[in-house]
Amino acid sequence: MAHHADFTNFQSNDRKESLELLLQHYEALSSEQDNWVANLSNASSLIWYAYHSLNVPVNWSGFYITASEGQLLLGPFQGKVACQSIEFGRGVCGKAASDQVTQVVPDVNKHPDHIACDGETKSEIVVPIVKEGKTLGVIDIDCLDLEGFGETDKQALERLAELIVKTCKF
Amino acid sequence: MAHHADFTNFQSNDRKESLELLLQHYEALSSEQDNWVANLSNASSLIWYAYHSLNVPVNWSGFYITASEGQLLLGPFQGKVACQSIEFGRGVCGKAASDQVTQVVPDVNKHPDHIACDGETKSEIVVPIVKEGKTLGVIDIDCLDLEGFGETDKQALERLAELIVKTCKF
Repeated sequence: MAHHADFTNFQSNDRKESLELLLQHYEALSSEQDNWVANLSNASSLIWYAYHSLNVPVNWSGFYITASEGQLLLGPFQGKVACQSIEFGRGVCGKAASDQVTQVVPDVNKHPDHIACDGETKSEIVVPIVKEGKTLGVIDIDCLDLEGFGETDKQALERLAELIVKTCKF
Repeated sequence: MAHHADFTNFQSNDRKESLELLLQHYEALSSEQDNWVANLSNASSLIWYAYHSLNVPVNWSGFYITASEGQLLLGPFQGKVACQSIEFGRGVCGKAASDQVTQVVPDVNKHPDHIACDGETKSEIVVPIVKEGKTLGVIDIDCLDLEGFGETDKQALERLAELIVKTCKF
């Protein structure tokens, strides 16, 4: 690629194909880099541009990282300013972190314990990043549409979480 | 504010006023938080939305952080995927880091040692973040227009760099 920015060109209208490209681009970018801030900053950008190239109105893509026992702290992201700190068990991110299970929320306003960083968000997916039984953090993506995410996203983003575990030193 | 995302609403067409608001919002967001990743992730977002509300076509806003002696690593940012590692002295970011002087570049294509992460970038400003004589990192902003940045930006962003030194633990 001529420029690093070209990694954010996704020339496909197929969600599965674009997310596959996202994983390939993440692997290429992290092949000689294990710094988690650098890698997750680029990963946030890849996620943002992958969904936008599919015309999915993602309004936030990024990470919360386990900073201390039971506490998530805001990591690199794309989108508007967000809540800095989330306790394990609280909200969609906290539930993914404590249960270590991907949360697909088709309508955040029907979720009993949704923490709203942005009132415009309609749906959300949160994927835990788990290494040897410990939650290192979560991938968090918000969408302005209802039912923004489904099984295809879950599968691809869980693979991204595995790649992050393999490539990043936290 | 009702939601954290509201911090990215800048209701002014005056550059000096919007950048003043940016500084106030950064101070509010970092008042109870000293984690540099969380604070600089939100700062990237504030910068992005402040300039976009002024219709300045900023295509990258973020940070490079001193990771080891003479080496900058990619930090939190908004925009397309970027170069992960830059040596002190190399390119506009590296020069700001080594000289500890703000670099305002009206035309990156006329700059003798510009590192192009994105071929579309036309102008750039890089502000060093310096604590007790040591460069902690740089604020880096790219624009799709020539002469995107000037004295008003330099003054405000140098104050942001000072606030970052005061509020963040690196």
